[in-house]
Amino acid sequence: MFAGACRGPASGRIGGGHRNVAWSGIGMVANRKRRGGPSKSVAPPADLAAGAVGELWSDDLPEAARALLTSAVLCFSRKGFHATTTRDITAAIGLSPGALYVHFPSKEGVLFEIVRTGHERALEAIRAQRDDGDTRAYVGRLVAGLVAWHARHHTVARVCQYELAGLGPEHRAAVRELRRRFTAVLRSAVTRGAREGVFDVPDVNRSVRAIVSLGIDLVRWYSIEGADSPEVLAGYYADLALRMLGTDAAAR
Amino acid sequence: MFAGACRGPASGRIGGGHRNVAWSGIGMVANRKRRGGPSKSVAPPADLAAGAVGELWSDDLPEAARALLTSAVLCFSRKGFHATTTRDITAAIGLSPGALYVHFPSKEGVLFEIVRTGHERALEAIRAQRDDGDTRAYVGRLVAGLVAWHARHHTVARVCQYELAGLGPEHRAAVRELRRRFTAVLRSAVTRGAREGVFDVPDVNRSVRAIVSLGIDLVRWYSIEGADSPEVLAGYYADLALRMLGTDAAAR
Repeated sequence: MFAGACRGPASGRIGGGHRNVAWSGIGMVANRKRRGGPSKSVAPPADLAAGAVGELWSDDLPEAARALLTSAVLCFSRKGFHATTTRDITAAIGLSPGALYVHFPSKEGVLFEIVRTGHERALEAIRAQRDDGDTRAYVGRLVAGLVAWHARHHTVARVCQYELAGLGPEHRAAVRELRRRFTAVLRSAVTRGAREGVFDVPDVNRSVRAIVSLGIDLVRWYSIEGADSPEVLAGYYADLALRMLGTDAAAR
Repeated sequence: MFAGACRGPASGRIGGGHRNVAWSGIGMVANRKRRGGPSKSVAPPADLAAGAVGELWSDDLPEAARALLTSAVLCFSRKGFHATTTRDITAAIGLSPGALYVHFPSKEGVLFEIVRTGHERALEAIRAQRDDGDTRAYVGRLVAGLVAWHARHHTVARVCQYELAGLGPEHRAAVRELRRRFTAVLRSAVTRGAREGVFDVPDVNRSVRAIVSLGIDLVRWYSIEGADSPEVLAGYYADLALRMLGTDAAAR
């Protein structure tokens, strides 16, 4: 099924020694039967491999719909939403262009499903963090959760961040609401810490935005094949965030 | 001359109350003679107005080439490089499509001139910071310079960060070298501070990358019409960066 690939220019990542490798398969390529002989296929980025994507799309969706979403993530991340055609998305998984409309109302509908799902999963990832009343530790876990999620799902997260211009007004409003909820979790915890005197924060909104920036900007340069695993990066950034919030060094 | 505008979807920025306003003029619209009656034109984003763009493009370039670059910045930032045609770029400033090739070899050549110039100017902005031997103060000035530049030129900087995939291999290598030099300035200063014991930095590369992320991610959400001027944001982020580097709170 995953015989082709979205053709597009190479990735724009050029910093820090993290660069996309060329690859010609997508999605569940790992499950694909190879018929002997050396294959020219290169493994897809790990965050697009079956496992990581399987975590994202709802099990309620038909397999073809999930395959279309995965293919679209790849196309949008390589060519951008506006330069991607519905034919690009379907051809990469061996379907006719019309097959997209069996599952989605439009190319914009595909983008919205990706962006909505990505934002909901990121929100779930930070809401799942344990709050045992120790605000400093809780904020550290929130930041680690945020960073690890964006690193693990960096290609999907990249589409979620960079292709919003492709959404219609109603869908954009829905995503804005999800982002508001996401930021609110972090803002509430930082505000609590400031009130408790655990943190020294001149401006909660600015500091929270900066912490979110650390998590979001990594989708620009992160590679799962790079030096830092999502967990290592998450731990380092949680420490940086707590430093930004002015926690007492002695308490670390 | 600046009678039209690059038509494209609205900006994707949806966070923090910063959203692009609709506008129909570009570049040196401020200098345009208005012939009475209420104009439907809306002011362009301030970082694309005559002053800020005039700082960027070389005076050695003919006026038409500079107008093409400004138009291209707008088109690329709204529609993306791949979805922008040379006709989009020229039509917005009342030129025929062929006019682009008088000044640039290709659409990719226009993108490279934008990206190269943006990176060179950002590098100049941090190289211009005074180093009086006080490493803490020097790093604060570097971060403030980095942040202020990206805020002031956020639309150009956005193209510099998000449209790199449109560059050919040689041009991408040239940009990579400029980015290496930029990071080296910051890394060198942070390393010096760590050696002096002014900073407490577990991993210089990771910390420098995080500081650069603060500056770069603001091109995604910053609006010159928003609450923070480039200078206010620069000051706040310089403090956050110094906190990340573990400077003694008492020394602040």
